[in-house]
Amino acid sequence: MESATENLHAFFTPKSVAIVGATKKINKAGHVIFKNFVENKRREVFKGEVFPVNPYEDSILGFQCYPSVTKIPVELDLVVVVVPAEIVPKIMEDAASKKVKAVVIISSGFSEIGKHELENKVLTIAKKAGIRVLGPNCLGVYDSRTGVDMLFLPETKILTTGEEVIATPRPMPGNIAMVTQSGAFGVAALDYLAGRQIGVSKFVSFGNKCDVDEAEMLHYLLYDEETKVILLYIEDIKSGREFIKIAKEVAKRKPIVALKAGRTEAGARAAASHTGALAGSDQIYDGVFAQTGILRAKDMEEFFDAGKALAMQPPASGKNVGIVTDAGGPGIMAVDECELRGLVVKRFSEATIQKFEKMKEEGKLPKFATNLNPVDITGSGTSEMFEAAVEILFQDPEIHGIILLGLHHTPALQEDYIDRVARVATKHDKPIVACDIGETEMALHTRFRFDKLGIPAYSSPEDSARAMNILVKYGEYLEKHNCLKEYIQNFLKEKRKAKTS
Amino acid sequence: MESATENLHAFFTPKSVAIVGATKKINKAGHVIFKNFVENKRREVFKGEVFPVNPYEDSILGFQCYPSVTKIPVELDLVVVVVPAEIVPKIMEDAASKKVKAVVIISSGFSEIGKHELENKVLTIAKKAGIRVLGPNCLGVYDSRTGVDMLFLPETKILTTGEEVIATPRPMPGNIAMVTQSGAFGVAALDYLAGRQIGVSKFVSFGNKCDVDEAEMLHYLLYDEETKVILLYIEDIKSGREFIKIAKEVAKRKPIVALKAGRTEAGARAAASHTGALAGSDQIYDGVFAQTGILRAKDMEEFFDAGKALAMQPPASGKNVGIVTDAGGPGIMAVDECELRGLVVKRFSEATIQKFEKMKEEGKLPKFATNLNPVDITGSGTSEMFEAAVEILFQDPEIHGIILLGLHHTPALQEDYIDRVARVATKHDKPIVACDIGETEMALHTRFRFDKLGIPAYSSPEDSARAMNILVKYGEYLEKHNCLKEYIQNFLKEKRKAKTS
Repeated sequence: MESATENLHAFFTPKSVAIVGATKKINKAGHVIFKNFVENKRREVFKGEVFPVNPYEDSILGFQCYPSVTKIPVELDLVVVVVPAEIVPKIMEDAASKKVKAVVIISSGFSEIGKHELENKVLTIAKKAGIRVLGPNCLGVYDSRTGVDMLFLPETKILTTGEEVIATPRPMPGNIAMVTQSGAFGVAALDYLAGRQIGVSKFVSFGNKCDVDEAEMLHYLLYDEETKVILLYIEDIKSGREFIKIAKEVAKRKPIVALKAGRTEAGARAAASHTGALAGSDQIYDGVFAQTGILRAKDMEEFFDAGKALAMQPPASGKNVGIVTDAGGPGIMAVDECELRGLVVKRFSEATIQKFEKMKEEGKLPKFATNLNPVDITGSGTSEMFEAAVEILFQDPEIHGIILLGLHHTPALQEDYIDRVARVATKHDKPIVACDIGETEMALHTRFRFDKLGIPAYSSPEDSARAMNILVKYGEYLEKHNCLKEYIQNFLKEKRKAKTS
Repeated sequence: MESATENLHAFFTPKSVAIVGATKKINKAGHVIFKNFVENKRREVFKGEVFPVNPYEDSILGFQCYPSVTKIPVELDLVVVVVPAEIVPKIMEDAASKKVKAVVIISSGFSEIGKHELENKVLTIAKKAGIRVLGPNCLGVYDSRTGVDMLFLPETKILTTGEEVIATPRPMPGNIAMVTQSGAFGVAALDYLAGRQIGVSKFVSFGNKCDVDEAEMLHYLLYDEETKVILLYIEDIKSGREFIKIAKEVAKRKPIVALKAGRTEAGARAAASHTGALAGSDQIYDGVFAQTGILRAKDMEEFFDAGKALAMQPPASGKNVGIVTDAGGPGIMAVDECELRGLVVKRFSEATIQKFEKMKEEGKLPKFATNLNPVDITGSGTSEMFEAAVEILFQDPEIHGIILLGLHHTPALQEDYIDRVARVATKHDKPIVACDIGETEMALHTRFRFDKLGIPAYSSPEDSARAMNILVKYGEYLEKHNCLKEYIQNFLKEKRKAKTS
């Protein structure tokens, strides 16, 4: 098993890499990719050797240029190809004679425009030489820790005002792997994740996936220590049986969230003309996902929100949700969304209700706070009240997950409630998610602070309920396969380790 | 009809207002509200007279204080009451003898905690004196143009770092009226709208709605020139028959979007313990909304997104959607969401397909661009291509609305595509909505720029499809009542007027 994934390793941690098609011309993919490696090497993030390959240049960015990979004086792990499609077979022959382990073909102009023969030619050479191929027609790899970065889209753009702004950012290192069939959606995802400060371990764009496909990549990521959660954007799955077998195993150890476009007939038609995906009925995919424990996101936002929830919180061991709020309306909205997704928001146990009643008697909760589920600490709610209410719900054995709606606008509620709640949460092993509504400073600060302390925060009550739903659904899959307890234990152990390190 | 709404006028444009319970103590509602009026008066936004009422003070913020409204030497249009519930009847008696037109009772402690008798007492006095009452237990009114501002929640908060951040912002002036039963959700909504730079005309929080209710407020807003779209958050509707009658009329002239919490049984139970709302089955509300042409949002995000779409774009006169994109995957996602909502994304007419083929021949569109619907101008797409493709769809009589997915990440696409597309759009009378994915500078800039030019922009393909769905659904209602053409004409006339002024 390990050996099967061994040469995929070269895609992410090559000791040496050659960029075929490297050039001095700015804005060209061959320039940007080479420069990414050079800059990451200078910063000592990328620790391997880098070689530009271009028969028409002597040197690029101060690096000696080679006319062909065969002339490079060291062993080569990885070759990145950014030359016109027609000459790619020649490059592959060179790579074969050089005995490289892996090739990423960024170039387009293959099966996606009907040139199946050309693609087959490339694949035949690779198979014969034992070279693993990613692509063609892809964006390749970005690894936040090893400095492998093949993203060639301009990192910044210049506005008509002359201002330079971030256009294609790199997210910070984290535990989410993004695996995508669509390169365009992939970079858009990085832009989203970077802006929301959600960390990424690896990014892989497949393109035509002539060799390495989803199944094999899932398998590889199973053994990748940095990756805790896998986000998978797909339009079709080619090796169905293999995919199901592997996904089943991976999902028991690491959650996989899928966004599968082409859900409707018209969407499937569009997918077919996009990648030639013979998508098959969407029900088949629903079946595959259910069978393998892959969590299917309903839309883009749920896709990212689910990734964040699973990276930060353990799955739930049941579907009873307890809600704490300081705003009645949003509390109802969260209840609605939970129930619509099949979660249960039922009246608290008498024991829990009595605990809240006692708090009221002692003046620790407003006299008119409702406490049946949701607990509504009302607009007079303080940080201490949130802390105490959350503690009570964590202690209730009938509650499997907690949604905290802390609207920051009231005068009594201070910023410290975030830290108080997070402190309580670390003592328990149930999942908790948070929500604050608003798009100005305090709301943004509140959500970022929650995220930072490991409680995933969302901008609407419904989003937070959907995140909890994913934690419940993943818990159900693990429970069915008798590995929920083990997963939670590992998850919490790693979380605590990450905290102290 | 006009006379019925005349004394609601005093809530929004009073010539004189007294704040009963005004105080020097910071953070008290009576201080914040009085100060809001004083500051808006100083800036000449609020043009009326302001009087603090408090028997224990001589002056507040330099204004002479009165022991009772009866002692104020001028006629009073409006009284804002911020004193304990028990003394509100006495204040009402004073207001009655002073012949004020309208009273806003911010104070809580009435029917929401079972004190029905006290609330009835207040109402009886009001009825007898012909005073209109908003509240009790509400946040009152915010009017972005007249400077009436009763929001007493702290505009900023101080973080533990000592930094001061915006906590409860006021949105800029605009055309959306926000009418809400939940005060907490109402301010959260303002925070959202302010951050997204969506303008608001009026904000009204009802609270217990002992007198003025949704029906009457809708009626009032029908005649409010600043308001083009009404966002309505409700947990229950009391005067059902009256509401239906009025909403039907209003919806023919101004779109109403409703977010009705308590959709599930558990949610309805939570609503009942929140406001005592006897919510009735959710199906009944669905019926009421369908009958009256009120557009029901499925969740918070759709609620705001719909408001923005309707404020910026005319409704569609059919359900055929044309999609232009530079990214295949997101294109498919938009198709899926359209079809799931009952919109139609069908293959373009032969005439339109031929126009795209001609562009390809002339080198004005990439050779391998797909053009059946979506049109995918691909990652090599330029600003000119977007402009030309959008123009073709506007000219296609079979297309009723356009979704533009312009992912900014590709090198070829420059910022000017936004202005080019907006220029084309102004020449036509079909709706268009836009999407760019990402949460860093260029994506935020792109969406704001689209918004600024009157094309509502969204952060996911699905959100943009939902926005188009609302424009189609509203068009269907208007068409059924033979007022679609008139509405669109008026809408475009006003839009052009706003642009030149």
